[in-house]
Amino acid sequence: MNQDTISRIRKFSEDRDWDQFHAPANLAKSVVIEAAELLECFQWDNDNYDLQSVKEELADVLICSQQLLDKLGLDADEIVNMKMSQNEAKYPIEKAKGKALKYDQL
Amino acid sequence: MNQDTISRIRKFSEDRDWDQFHAPANLAKSVVIEAAELLECFQWDNDNYDLQSVKEELADVLICSQQLLDKLGLDADEIVNMKMSQNEAKYPIEKAKGKALKYDQL
Amino acid sequence: MNQDTISRIRKFSEDRDWDQFHAPANLAKSVVIEAAELLECFQWDNDNYDLQSVKEELADVLICSQQLLDKLGLDADEIVNMKMSQNEAKYPIEKAKGKALKYDQL
Amino acid sequence: MNQDTISRIRKFSEDRDWDQFHAPANLAKSVVIEAAELLECFQWDNDNYDLQSVKEELADVLICSQQLLDKLGLDADEIVNMKMSQNEAKYPIEKAKGKALKYDQL
Repeated sequence: MNQDTISRIRKFSEDRDWDQFHAPANLAKSVVIEAAELLECFQWDNDNYDLQSVKEELADVLICSQQLLDKLGLDADEIVNMKMSQNEAKYPIEKAKGKALKYDQL
Repeated sequence: MNQDTISRIRKFSEDRDWDQFHAPANLAKSVVIEAAELLECFQWDNDNYDLQSVKEELADVLICSQQLLDKLGLDADEIVNMKMSQNEAKYPIEKAKGKALKYDQL
Repeated sequence: MNQDTISRIRKFSEDRDWDQFHAPANLAKSVVIEAAELLECFQWDNDNYDLQSVKEELADVLICSQQLLDKLGLDADEIVNMKMSQNEAKYPIEKAKGKALKYDQL
Repeated sequence: MNQDTISRIRKFSEDRDWDQFHAPANLAKSVVIEAAELLECFQWDNDNYDLQSVKEELADVLICSQQLLDKLGLDADEIVNMKMSQNEAKYPIEKAKGKALKYDQL
Protein backbone atom coordinates (compact mmCIF):
# COMPACT_ATOMS: atom_id res chain seq x y z
CA MET A 1 0.00 0.00 0.00
CA ASN A 2 1.27 3.47 -0.74
CA GLN A 3 1.44 6.28 1.78
CA ASP A 4 -1.70 8.03 0.50
CA THR A 5 -3.79 4.92 1.03
CA ILE A 6 -2.37 4.40 4.51
CA SER A 7 -3.12 8.04 5.36
CA ARG A 8 -6.68 7.64 4.15
CA ILE A 9 -7.19 4.64 6.45
CA ARG A 10 -5.77 6.60 9.40
CA LYS A 11 -7.89 9.69 8.70
CA PHE A 12 -11.01 7.53 8.48
CA SER A 13 -10.55 6.33 12.06
CA GLU A 14 -9.40 9.69 13.39
CA ASP A 15 -12.40 11.48 11.91
CA ARG A 16 -14.71 9.00 13.67
CA ASP A 17 -12.78 8.92 16.94
CA TRP A 18 -12.45 5.16 16.64
CA ASP A 19 -8.94 4.80 17.97
CA GLN A 20 -10.46 4.07 21.40
CA PHE A 21 -11.82 0.76 20.04
CA HIS A 22 -8.60 -0.27 18.32
CA ALA A 23 -6.94 -2.30 21.04
CA PRO A 24 -4.56 -4.74 19.33
CA ALA A 25 -6.70 -7.71 20.45
CA ASN A 26 -9.80 -6.10 18.92
CA LEU A 27 -8.01 -5.51 15.63
CA ALA A 28 -6.77 -9.10 15.62
CA LYS A 29 -10.39 -10.20 16.03
CA SER A 30 -11.33 -7.88 13.17
CA VAL A 31 -8.73 -9.39 10.85
CA VAL A 32 -10.20 -12.88 11.44
CA ILE A 33 -13.77 -11.65 11.05
CA GLU A 34 -12.97 -9.98 7.73
CA ALA A 35 -10.94 -12.99 6.60
CA ALA A 36 -13.93 -15.23 7.27
CA GLU A 37 -16.11 -12.91 5.17
CA LEU A 38 -13.55 -13.32 2.39
CA LEU A 39 -13.77 -17.10 2.77
CA GLU A 40 -17.56 -16.84 2.55
CA CYS A 41 -17.11 -15.90 -1.13
CA PHE A 42 -15.86 -19.46 -1.63
CA GLN A 43 -18.08 -21.23 0.94
CA TRP A 44 -20.04 -23.59 -1.31
CA ASP A 45 -18.06 -23.36 -4.54
CA ASN A 46 -14.30 -23.19 -4.85
CA ASP A 47 -14.25 -22.18 -8.48
CA ASN A 48 -17.11 -19.76 -9.05
CA TYR A 49 -17.05 -16.61 -7.01
CA ASP A 50 -18.19 -13.04 -7.21
CA LEU A 51 -15.01 -11.06 -7.94
CA GLN A 52 -16.43 -7.78 -6.66
CA SER A 53 -17.23 -9.37 -3.28
CA VAL A 54 -13.75 -10.90 -3.13
CA LYS A 55 -12.23 -7.46 -3.78
CA GLU A 56 -14.29 -5.86 -1.04
CA GLU A 57 -13.58 -8.49 1.58
CA LEU A 58 -9.89 -8.77 0.76
CA ALA A 59 -9.70 -4.98 1.00
CA ASP A 60 -11.23 -5.17 4.48
CA VAL A 61 -8.57 -7.69 5.53
CA LEU A 62 -5.87 -5.31 4.29
CA ILE A 63 -7.48 -2.33 6.04
CA CYS A 64 -7.72 -4.07 9.42
CA SER A 65 -4.20 -5.41 9.03
CA GLN A 66 -2.94 -1.89 8.35
CA GLN A 67 -4.77 -0.61 11.42
CA LEU A 68 -3.01 -3.24 13.51
CA LEU A 69 0.37 -2.36 11.98
CA ASP A 70 -0.33 1.28 12.83
CA LYS A 71 -1.47 0.55 16.35
CA LEU A 72 1.72 -1.39 17.05
CA GLY A 73 4.00 1.01 15.14
CA LEU A 74 5.03 -1.71 12.70
CA ASP A 75 6.07 -1.50 9.07
CA ALA A 76 4.62 -4.03 6.62
CA ASP A 77 7.82 -4.41 4.59
CA GLU A 78 9.93 -4.92 7.66
CA ILE A 79 7.85 -7.67 9.23
CA VAL A 80 7.11 -9.37 5.91
CA ASN A 81 10.81 -9.51 5.01
CA MET A 82 11.63 -10.81 8.49
CA LYS A 83 9.00 -13.56 8.05
CA MET A 84 10.06 -14.36 4.49
CA SER A 85 13.59 -15.03 5.78
CA GLN A 86 12.09 -17.48 8.25
CA ASN A 87 9.90 -19.10 5.59
CA GLU A 88 12.81 -19.45 3.16
CA ALA A 89 14.80 -21.24 5.85
CA LYS A 90 11.89 -23.44 6.93
CA TYR A 91 11.06 -24.50 3.39
CA PRO A 92 14.33 -25.25 1.54
CA ILE A 93 13.67 -25.31 -2.21
CA GLU A 94 15.02 -28.81 -2.78
CA LYS A 95 12.78 -30.25 -0.04
CA ALA A 96 9.64 -28.19 -0.51
CA LYS A 97 9.44 -28.05 -4.29
CA GLY A 98 6.04 -29.14 -5.55
CA LYS A 99 4.81 -30.23 -2.14
CA ALA A 100 1.98 -28.75 -0.08
CA LEU A 101 3.34 -29.91 3.24
CA LYS A 102 4.07 -28.11 6.48
CA TYR A 103 7.75 -27.62 7.21
CA ASP A 104 7.70 -30.20 10.00
CA GLN A 105 6.48 -32.86 7.56
CA LEU A 106 9.06 -32.23 4.83
CA MET B 1 4.33 -3.26 0.65
CA ASN B 2 6.96 -2.14 -1.80
CA GLN B 3 7.74 -3.85 -5.09
CA ASP B 4 10.84 -5.65 -3.78
CA THR B 5 8.87 -7.29 -1.00
CA ILE B 6 6.13 -8.33 -3.42
CA SER B 7 8.74 -9.78 -5.78
CA ARG B 8 10.29 -11.75 -2.94
CA ILE B 9 6.91 -13.29 -2.09
CA ARG B 10 6.38 -14.22 -5.75
CA LYS B 11 9.85 -15.71 -6.16
CA PHE B 12 9.36 -17.79 -3.00
CA SER B 13 6.36 -19.58 -4.53
CA GLU B 14 7.86 -19.82 -8.01
CA ASP B 15 11.06 -21.39 -6.70
CA ARG B 16 8.98 -24.03 -4.91
CA ASP B 17 6.51 -24.60 -7.74
CA TRP B 18 3.65 -23.80 -5.40
CA ASP B 19 1.46 -21.89 -7.81
CA GLN B 20 -0.41 -25.13 -8.49
CA PHE B 21 -1.79 -25.03 -4.92
CA HIS B 22 -2.75 -21.36 -5.00
CA ALA B 23 -6.34 -21.58 -6.17
CA PRO B 24 -8.13 -18.45 -4.94
CA ALA B 25 -10.29 -20.53 -2.56
CA ASN B 26 -7.17 -22.13 -1.04
CA LEU B 27 -5.56 -18.72 -0.52
CA ALA B 28 -8.76 -17.43 1.09
CA LYS B 29 -8.60 -20.39 3.48
CA SER B 30 -4.96 -19.55 4.16
CA VAL B 31 -5.78 -15.95 5.03
CA VAL B 32 -8.29 -17.12 7.67
CA ILE B 33 -5.92 -19.75 9.02
CA GLU B 34 -3.13 -17.21 9.42
CA ALA B 35 -5.54 -14.64 10.88
CA ALA B 36 -6.61 -17.18 13.50
CA GLU B 37 -2.95 -17.77 14.40
CA LEU B 38 -2.65 -14.02 14.86
CA LEU B 39 -5.70 -14.07 17.13
CA GLU B 40 -4.11 -16.88 19.12
CA CYS B 41 -1.56 -14.32 20.39
CA PHE B 42 -4.49 -12.72 22.23
CA GLN B 43 -6.47 -15.87 23.06
CA TRP B 44 -6.43 -15.76 26.86
CA ASP B 45 -5.21 -12.22 27.51
CA ASN B 46 -6.18 -9.13 25.56
CA ASP B 47 -3.48 -6.92 26.96
CA ASN B 48 -0.34 -9.00 27.31
CA TYR B 49 0.99 -10.54 24.14
CA ASP B 50 4.27 -11.60 22.64
CA LEU B 51 5.10 -8.89 20.12
CA GLN B 52 7.43 -11.10 18.09
CA SER B 53 4.66 -13.67 17.58
CA VAL B 54 2.23 -10.94 16.60
CA LYS B 55 4.73 -9.67 14.00
CA GLU B 56 5.21 -13.13 12.54
CA GLU B 57 1.52 -13.97 12.33
CA LEU B 58 0.49 -10.58 10.99
CA ALA B 59 3.23 -10.93 8.38
CA ASP B 60 1.75 -14.28 7.33
CA VAL B 61 -1.67 -12.64 6.90
CA LEU B 62 -0.07 -10.00 4.67
CA ILE B 63 1.84 -12.61 2.67
CA CYS B 64 -1.24 -14.75 1.98
CA SER B 65 -3.26 -11.66 1.15
CA GLN B 66 -0.59 -10.58 -1.34
CA GLN B 67 -0.62 -14.04 -2.89
CA LEU B 68 -4.38 -13.75 -3.39
CA LEU B 69 -4.02 -10.25 -4.86
CA ASP B 70 -1.42 -11.66 -7.26
CA LYS B 71 -3.49 -14.68 -8.20
CA LEU B 72 -6.44 -12.47 -9.11
CA GLY B 73 -4.34 -9.73 -10.73
CA LEU B 74 -5.48 -7.15 -8.19
CA ASP B 75 -3.74 -4.09 -6.84
CA ALA B 76 -3.89 -3.44 -3.09
CA ASP B 77 -4.18 0.34 -3.39
CA GLU B 78 -6.94 0.09 -5.95
CA ILE B 79 -9.19 -2.25 -4.00
CA VAL B 80 -8.50 -0.58 -0.66
CA ASN B 81 -9.37 2.85 -2.03
CA MET B 82 -12.52 1.45 -3.64
CA LYS B 83 -13.52 -0.07 -0.27
CA MET B 84 -12.59 3.06 1.70
CA SER B 85 -14.99 5.04 -0.50
CA GLN B 86 -17.71 2.56 0.43
CA ASN B 87 -16.80 2.68 4.12
CA GLU B 88 -16.75 6.49 4.17
CA ALA B 89 -20.25 6.52 2.68
CA LYS B 90 -21.55 3.79 5.01
CA TYR B 91 -20.19 5.47 8.12
CA PRO B 92 -20.88 9.23 7.89
CA ILE B 93 -18.70 11.08 10.41
CA GLU B 94 -21.58 12.79 12.19
CA LYS B 95 -23.41 9.49 12.73
CA ALA B 96 -20.48 7.15 13.41
CA LYS B 97 -18.28 9.35 15.58
CA GLY B 98 -17.31 7.60 18.80
CA LYS B 99 -19.59 4.62 18.19
CA ALA B 100 -18.56 1.00 17.61
CA LEU B 101 -21.71 0.08 15.72
CA LYS B 102 -22.30 -1.55 12.35
CA TYR B 103 -23.55 0.82 9.69
CA ASP B 104 -27.02 -0.74 9.72
CA GLN B 105 -27.36 0.10 13.42
CA LEU B 106 -26.30 3.74 13.20
CA MET C 1 -23.02 -34.81 23.61
CA ASN C 2 -24.14 -36.88 26.55
CA GLN C 3 -23.92 -35.79 30.18
CA ASP C 4 -20.81 -37.86 30.94
CA THR C 5 -18.86 -36.18 28.16
CA ILE C 6 -19.99 -32.74 29.28
CA SER C 7 -18.97 -33.55 32.85
CA ARG C 8 -15.55 -34.68 31.67
CA ILE C 9 -15.02 -31.36 29.87
CA ARG C 10 -16.05 -29.45 33.00
CA LYS C 11 -13.83 -31.51 35.29
CA PHE C 12 -10.87 -30.98 32.98
CA SER C 13 -11.07 -27.19 33.44
CA GLU C 14 -11.91 -27.35 37.13
CA ASP C 15 -8.95 -29.62 37.87
CA ARG C 16 -6.66 -27.12 36.14
CA ASP C 17 -8.27 -24.00 37.62
CA TRP C 18 -8.84 -22.66 34.12
CA ASP C 19 -12.25 -21.11 34.68
CA GLN C 20 -10.48 -17.80 35.33
CA PHE C 21 -9.44 -17.69 31.64
CA HIS C 22 -12.85 -18.63 30.28
CA ALA C 23 -14.38 -15.23 29.73
CA PRO C 24 -17.04 -15.60 27.03
CA ALA C 25 -14.97 -13.45 24.63
CA ASN C 26 -11.93 -15.70 25.16
CA LEU C 27 -13.99 -18.82 24.49
CA ALA C 28 -15.42 -17.23 21.35
CA LYS C 29 -11.83 -16.59 20.19
CA SER C 30 -11.02 -20.22 21.02
CA VAL C 31 -13.89 -21.53 18.91
CA VAL C 32 -12.57 -19.59 15.88
CA ILE C 33 -9.00 -20.68 16.52
CA GLU C 34 -10.00 -24.34 16.70
CA ALA C 35 -12.29 -23.97 13.68
CA ALA C 36 -9.36 -22.59 11.68
CA GLU C 37 -7.25 -25.59 12.70
CA LEU C 38 -10.06 -27.78 11.40
CA LEU C 39 -10.03 -25.85 8.12
CA GLU C 40 -6.27 -26.36 7.92
CA CYS C 41 -6.98 -30.06 7.28
CA PHE C 42 -8.46 -28.93 3.95
CA GLN C 43 -6.14 -25.99 3.23
CA TRP C 44 -4.52 -27.13 -0.02
CA ASP C 45 -6.75 -30.02 -1.00
CA ASN C 46 -10.51 -30.18 -0.64
CA ASP C 47 -10.82 -33.87 -1.25
CA ASN C 48 -7.89 -35.58 0.44
CA TYR C 49 -7.59 -35.07 4.15
CA ASP C 50 -6.29 -36.85 7.20
CA LEU C 51 -9.40 -38.15 8.95
CA GLN C 52 -7.68 -38.47 12.33
CA SER C 53 -6.70 -34.78 12.25
CA VAL C 54 -10.22 -33.80 11.24
CA LYS C 55 -11.60 -35.76 14.20
CA GLU C 56 -9.21 -34.09 16.62
CA GLU C 57 -9.84 -30.56 15.40
CA LEU C 58 -13.61 -30.98 15.13
CA ALA C 59 -13.56 -32.37 18.68
CA ASP C 60 -11.74 -29.22 19.83
CA VAL C 61 -14.43 -27.05 18.23
CA LEU C 62 -17.09 -29.04 20.10
CA ILE C 63 -15.17 -28.81 23.38
CA CYS C 64 -14.73 -25.03 23.19
CA SER C 65 -18.35 -24.62 22.14
CA GLN C 66 -19.45 -26.66 25.15
CA GLN C 67 -17.29 -24.52 27.42
CA LEU C 68 -19.00 -21.41 26.08
CA LEU C 69 -22.44 -22.99 26.52
CA ASP C 70 -21.48 -23.80 30.11
CA LYS C 71 -20.08 -20.37 30.82
CA LEU C 72 -23.30 -18.73 29.65
CA GLY C 73 -25.60 -21.34 31.22
CA LEU C 74 -26.99 -22.35 27.83
CA ASP C 75 -28.33 -25.65 26.59
CA ALA C 76 -27.24 -26.88 23.16
CA ASP C 77 -30.62 -28.37 22.24
CA GLU C 78 -32.48 -25.25 23.25
CA ILE C 79 -30.42 -22.79 21.23
CA VAL C 80 -30.09 -25.11 18.24
CA ASN C 81 -33.83 -25.64 18.07
CA MET C 82 -34.43 -21.91 18.42
CA LYS C 83 -32.01 -21.29 15.53
CA MET C 84 -33.42 -24.11 13.40
CA SER C 85 -36.84 -22.45 13.64
CA GLN C 86 -35.28 -19.26 12.34
CA ASN C 87 -33.42 -21.11 9.56
CA GLU C 88 -36.54 -22.99 8.48
CA ALA C 89 -38.38 -19.69 8.17
CA LYS C 90 -35.52 -17.93 6.37
CA TYR C 91 -35.06 -20.74 3.87
CA PRO C 92 -38.51 -21.90 2.70
CA ILE C 93 -38.19 -25.30 1.01
CA GLU C 94 -39.77 -24.24 -2.26
CA LYS C 95 -37.39 -21.29 -2.63
CA ALA C 96 -34.19 -22.76 -1.23
CA LYS C 97 -34.33 -26.25 -2.70
CA GLY C 98 -31.11 -27.11 -4.52
CA LYS C 99 -29.65 -23.62 -4.19
CA ALA C 100 -26.57 -22.57 -2.22
CA LEU C 101 -27.71 -18.98 -1.77
CA LYS C 102 -28.04 -16.79 1.28
CA TYR C 103 -31.61 -16.15 2.34
CA ASP C 104 -31.47 -12.52 1.19
CA GLN C 105 -30.62 -13.67 -2.33
CA LEU C 106 -33.38 -16.25 -2.69
CA MET D 1 -27.44 -32.62 21.32
CA ASN D 2 -30.22 -35.15 21.54
CA GLN D 3 -31.39 -37.34 18.69
CA ASP D 4 -34.45 -35.22 17.88
CA THR D 5 -32.33 -32.13 17.38
CA ILE D 6 -29.87 -34.03 15.18
CA SER D 7 -32.77 -35.40 13.12
CA ARG D 8 -34.16 -31.91 12.67
CA ILE D 9 -30.80 -30.67 11.33
CA ARG D 10 -30.65 -33.61 8.91
CA LYS D 11 -34.22 -33.14 7.71
CA PHE D 12 -33.57 -29.45 7.10
CA SER D 13 -30.82 -30.24 4.58
CA GLU D 14 -32.62 -33.19 3.04
CA ASP D 15 -35.78 -31.16 2.45
CA ARG D 16 -33.70 -28.52 0.63
CA ASP D 17 -31.54 -30.99 -1.29
CA TRP D 18 -28.42 -29.38 0.15
CA ASP D 19 -26.37 -32.49 0.68
CA GLN D 20 -24.74 -31.83 -2.70
CA PHE D 21 -23.06 -28.74 -1.21
CA HIS D 22 -21.91 -30.43 1.97
CA ALA D 23 -18.45 -31.58 0.97
CA PRO D 24 -16.39 -31.90 4.17
CA ALA D 25 -14.15 -29.01 3.08
CA ASN D 26 -17.20 -26.78 2.55
CA LEU D 27 -18.57 -27.66 5.99
CA ALA D 28 -15.17 -26.95 7.55
CA LYS D 29 -15.29 -23.51 5.89
CA SER D 30 -18.81 -23.07 7.25
CA VAL D 31 -17.72 -23.85 10.81
CA VAL D 32 -15.05 -21.12 10.61
CA ILE D 33 -17.44 -18.64 9.01
CA GLU D 34 -20.04 -19.19 11.74
CA ALA D 35 -17.36 -19.11 14.46
CA ALA D 36 -16.21 -15.72 13.16
CA GLU D 37 -19.80 -14.45 13.33
CA LEU D 38 -19.84 -15.60 16.94
CA LEU D 39 -16.62 -13.70 17.57
CA GLU D 40 -18.19 -10.62 16.01
CA CYS D 41 -20.47 -10.42 19.07
CA PHE D 42 -17.31 -9.60 21.03
CA GLN D 43 -15.44 -7.61 18.36
CA TRP D 44 -15.13 -4.22 20.04
CA ASP D 45 -16.09 -5.07 23.62
CA ASN D 46 -15.12 -8.19 25.51
CA ASP D 47 -17.56 -7.71 28.34
CA ASN D 48 -20.78 -6.35 26.89
CA TYR D 49 -22.47 -8.47 24.29
CA ASP D 50 -25.90 -9.21 22.98
CA LEU D 51 -26.81 -12.60 24.46
CA GLN D 52 -29.42 -13.36 21.83
CA SER D 53 -26.87 -12.88 19.04
CA VAL D 54 -24.38 -15.06 20.88
CA LYS D 55 -27.01 -17.81 21.17
CA GLU D 56 -27.82 -17.63 17.47
CA GLU D 57 -24.22 -17.68 16.29
CA LEU D 58 -23.12 -20.39 18.71
CA ALA D 59 -26.09 -22.44 17.54
CA ASP D 60 -24.90 -22.05 13.94
CA VAL D 61 -21.45 -23.33 14.94
CA LEU D 62 -23.09 -26.38 16.53
CA ILE D 63 -25.32 -26.96 13.50
CA CYS D 64 -22.44 -26.86 11.00
CA SER D 65 -20.32 -29.04 13.28
CA GLN D 66 -23.13 -31.59 13.44
CA GLN D 67 -23.43 -31.52 9.64
CA LEU D 68 -19.74 -32.30 9.38
CA LEU D 69 -20.02 -35.10 11.96
CA ASP D 70 -22.90 -36.52 9.91
CA LYS D 71 -21.09 -36.20 6.61
CA LEU D 72 -18.12 -38.12 7.96
CA GLY D 73 -20.19 -40.63 9.95
CA LEU D 74 -18.69 -39.49 13.24
CA ASP D 75 -20.13 -39.46 16.72
CA ALA D 76 -19.61 -36.36 18.87
CA ASP D 77 -19.14 -38.25 22.13
CA GLU D 78 -16.63 -40.62 20.60
CA ILE D 79 -14.35 -37.99 19.09
CA VAL D 80 -14.65 -35.64 22.07
CA ASN D 81 -13.71 -38.40 24.52
CA MET D 82 -10.80 -39.42 22.29
CA LYS D 83 -9.60 -35.79 22.25
CA MET D 84 -10.16 -35.29 25.97
CA SER D 85 -7.85 -38.25 26.63
CA GLN D 86 -5.20 -36.52 24.54
CA ASN D 87 -5.78 -33.18 26.27
CA GLU D 88 -5.61 -34.74 29.73
CA ALA D 89 -2.25 -36.29 28.83
CA LYS D 90 -0.90 -33.10 27.21
CA TYR D 91 -1.89 -30.92 30.15
CA PRO D 92 -0.99 -32.76 33.38
CA ILE D 93 -2.84 -31.13 36.30
CA GLU D 94 0.29 -30.42 38.33
CA LYS D 95 1.97 -28.62 35.42
CA ALA D 96 -1.02 -26.88 33.85
CA LYS D 97 -2.89 -25.73 36.94
CA GLY D 98 -3.69 -22.03 36.80
CA LYS D 99 -1.66 -21.43 33.65
CA ALA D 100 -2.94 -20.36 30.24
CA LEU D 101 -0.03 -21.85 28.32
CA LYS D 102 0.17 -24.22 25.39
CA TYR D 103 1.31 -27.71 26.29
CA ASP D 104 4.68 -27.21 24.60
CA GLN D 105 5.40 -24.24 26.88
CA LEU D 106 4.52 -25.93 30.17
